[in-house]
Amino acid sequence: MSTVVELLGRELPADRLVVDPEVLASLSHDEAEWAEVGTAAVALRARSESDVQIAVRVAAALGVPLVARGAGTGLSGGANAVDGCIVLDLSQMTSILEIDADNLIARVQPGVVNNDLKAAVAQAGLWYPPDPASAPWSTIGGNVATNAGGLCCLKYGVTRDYVLGLRAVVGGDAGYGTAVPLGRQTSKGVAGYDMTALMVGSEGTLGIVTEVTLRLRPALTGTPRTVVGAFGSLVDAGRAVALTTRRGLIPSALELLDRMCLRAVEDWKHLGIEADAAGLLLARIDTPGDAGEAEARALAETFESAGALWATQSTDALEAEALFEARRLAYPALERLGPVLTEDICVPRSRIPEMLGRIEQIATTHELTISTIAHAGDGNLHPLILTPVGDDAARARAQLGFEEMLDAALGFGGTVTGEHGVGLLKRGGLERELEPGSMSMQRSVRRALDPLGIFNPGKVL
Amino acid sequence: MSTVVELLGRELPADRLVVDPEVLASLSHDEAEWAEVGTAAVALRARSESDVQIAVRVAAALGVPLVARGAGTGLSGGANAVDGCIVLDLSQMTSILEIDADNLIARVQPGVVNNDLKAAVAQAGLWYPPDPASAPWSTIGGNVATNAGGLCCLKYGVTRDYVLGLRAVVGGDAGYGTAVPLGRQTSKGVAGYDMTALMVGSEGTLGIVTEVTLRLRPALTGTPRTVVGAFGSLVDAGRAVALTTRRGLIPSALELLDRMCLRAVEDWKHLGIEADAAGLLLARIDTPGDAGEAEARALAETFESAGALWATQSTDALEAEALFEARRLAYPALERLGPVLTEDICVPRSRIPEMLGRIEQIATTHELTISTIAHAGDGNLHPLILTPVGDDAARARAQLGFEEMLDAALGFGGTVTGEHGVGLLKRGGLERELEPGSMSMQRSVRRALDPLGIFNPGKVL
Repeated sequence: MSTVVELLGRELPADRLVVDPEVLASLSHDEAEWAEVGTAAVALRARSESDVQIAVRVAAALGVPLVARGAGTGLSGGANAVDGCIVLDLSQMTSILEIDADNLIARVQPGVVNNDLKAAVAQAGLWYPPDPASAPWSTIGGNVATNAGGLCCLKYGVTRDYVLGLRAVVGGDAGYGTAVPLGRQTSKGVAGYDMTALMVGSEGTLGIVTEVTLRLRPALTGTPRTVVGAFGSLVDAGRAVALTTRRGLIPSALELLDRMCLRAVEDWKHLGIEADAAGLLLARIDTPGDAGEAEARALAETFESAGALWATQSTDALEAEALFEARRLAYPALERLGPVLTEDICVPRSRIPEMLGRIEQIATTHELTISTIAHAGDGNLHPLILTPVGDDAARARAQLGFEEMLDAALGFGGTVTGEHGVGLLKRGGLERELEPGSMSMQRSVRRALDPLGIFNPGKVL
Repeated sequence: MSTVVELLGRELPADRLVVDPEVLASLSHDEAEWAEVGTAAVALRARSESDVQIAVRVAAALGVPLVARGAGTGLSGGANAVDGCIVLDLSQMTSILEIDADNLIARVQPGVVNNDLKAAVAQAGLWYPPDPASAPWSTIGGNVATNAGGLCCLKYGVTRDYVLGLRAVVGGDAGYGTAVPLGRQTSKGVAGYDMTALMVGSEGTLGIVTEVTLRLRPALTGTPRTVVGAFGSLVDAGRAVALTTRRGLIPSALELLDRMCLRAVEDWKHLGIEADAAGLLLARIDTPGDAGEAEARALAETFESAGALWATQSTDALEAEALFEARRLAYPALERLGPVLTEDICVPRSRIPEMLGRIEQIATTHELTISTIAHAGDGNLHPLILTPVGDDAARARAQLGFEEMLDAALGFGGTVTGEHGVGLLKRGGLERELEPGSMSMQRSVRRALDPLGIFNPGKVL
């Protein structure tokens, strides 16, 4: 019997196949360093949809798993290799096929980097809002696979809200290796089941996305306003977020950064941020004109009502930019301090103060170092558990704390993953979140679309 | 063998079951009067999720079809009875279970009428945006089943964008009659496949929705501005819409009404609308403050650039309200003139002028009376084909025109249904729109979730 490398080699140029163990290893995992990683048989650096079709046909013929990846910036292990798999690297499919300013859409290949797309559409006076912190590196394909969120979701929604249509190489009754268009190019449409929404966030387990049609918005006009509040405790900051929601204020970003994260960024990048506070709330308001001014004032007043040490509208554009830069750099800055186990829970906004309190309790109980950053306005919290290098006992305690935070979030009516996806790290949490009937529907759909079980097996479910 | 009526009668009070042929007939169809209607065995006026579970178990045990309905305002025949079916009337499940102003969500039963929900959440300073023209009568369950659109989708999205979670009584591996929670109560979440999005728009073919968790928005402040433009031809009006999009203007409604529709409303309701024009564009701008004023001016100027006879910002609130009332009454007003075959195509916005031209050609070719109303800002057109009562030849020509419009829309990169759903009337169109591989995925998912084929068989696919 031919091996997977031989079969791929018959149909593809040799330079698209990676078998060198070191290179292969580097393509075999994402940034969830706590998740298990298998040993891939080969990686294919796909250049076209036709390459993807070949990979899917070969995988189906041999019953070999297929693991798709973009930039590998995922945080749940969704792109981690499984033993004997083909790693399908889509990061070289970087064409922006169309930017249609008349219809506010773009068609792109999956390897286009989020910020590259933003820059390209900006040239046409347009805007692609989804802004995961990984935007300088992560690809649209990866964003689609995880239904990536980010800072501006609060006002502008997540990746799913921008995906009108897809092309995907699928399996099942359609025939393994068949490329299908899904969804639409129009702003509305209800023709059949929403297979596009089903594919978004499916982490490569239902097929391989080879093209994405994205909805765009007109570029924003004017300079956004920044409002900052400093709080004596994270729970107070959480109260301010709950009050912001209750008062009907919807900034375009409402981020929480705790003291540890601010210090880590400052020690690394020297942005000049000084905040003698347990946490900062950082809000951006992009409503234009006098209404935006009124919103900024109302927000600062809301922070004060909730007990802020101080709250102010930043009038210095450089300072505002430094603060948002700090938010973007929070994760890498903390990673410098040691292995990070990244949590990604989302709770109803009224429960944020309690959840922040529970995180502090869990840190104390398990002697953990936890730095919390959050897309607070969405109730999407990222407590980051830091452990010393090589401290196995600390790792074990971190795992316990990680799972306890999931249970706490579920107890507050929340979810085990707000935006990072299930991958490997949240499979147990998913089982606890979904009722058996709901899990059964998930499995039925997966089996129907991938009866051979070759698309990223072991992930999500 | 027991009949379906006997089995239901064993578990349900007699007054919830309808067998009277006349009442049954009235519950056996929606407003798509051109679609075929079967003869139901019985209707169940469900009062609770448990009633729905009984119906699904009985239907599964006997292999009897189950057709869910709300208010019956659908326009594609999706709620039409099939022979021997149980009609599951959900219109009496009208409880608003929760309005949570702290988290901007509402939980409701499927029979709650759209406008009743709007009124209830307005009491809490909140807003539920989706506004199909049927909002005074149609239910949230029906809106979810068809992924209903409306006027404000352009800026605020469609029903799907507001459904965070559901409860549904499903079948398949979960077990027929199992009630499952799907989705989430949080503003973000990516835990597993998006089964909620799959259910929205599935027209009762994947299970029966018994509860809906909806995202709400803070109520709008201030009075919206209305901009009206009159055009010498519908194609000119279409050009104005395309130019509006190209200039990055996004009103909260941008509606097109043709002369015939305006006259039909005026003859009926005497709202005092006079417009000696082939068509009116009617726009609403709800951006507050000076930015809203600038937007209104830019829009009026855009209408003029595109060749409007005149364009103006309406300063009279009563006049503005009368115009939007005319839009809402357009369909019933035209129905008074004879049987209406309702089209619901959506094209890329740049192709609206060509599509409007094609509609005029089709009317001429087939000697049809067509009145076009449109959610023009979305490219979602509703050419309404009017036929004289009892004129079978005209009906046959109307059918031809109906299908030709679908093909034209597909030719322009559009879809056969923008917001009404596939039901019965668009099954042929759906087959032409979707490629075989894509159709095959649709069928696979349906079979996986309803292997017995009892959920609204013959609809959609």
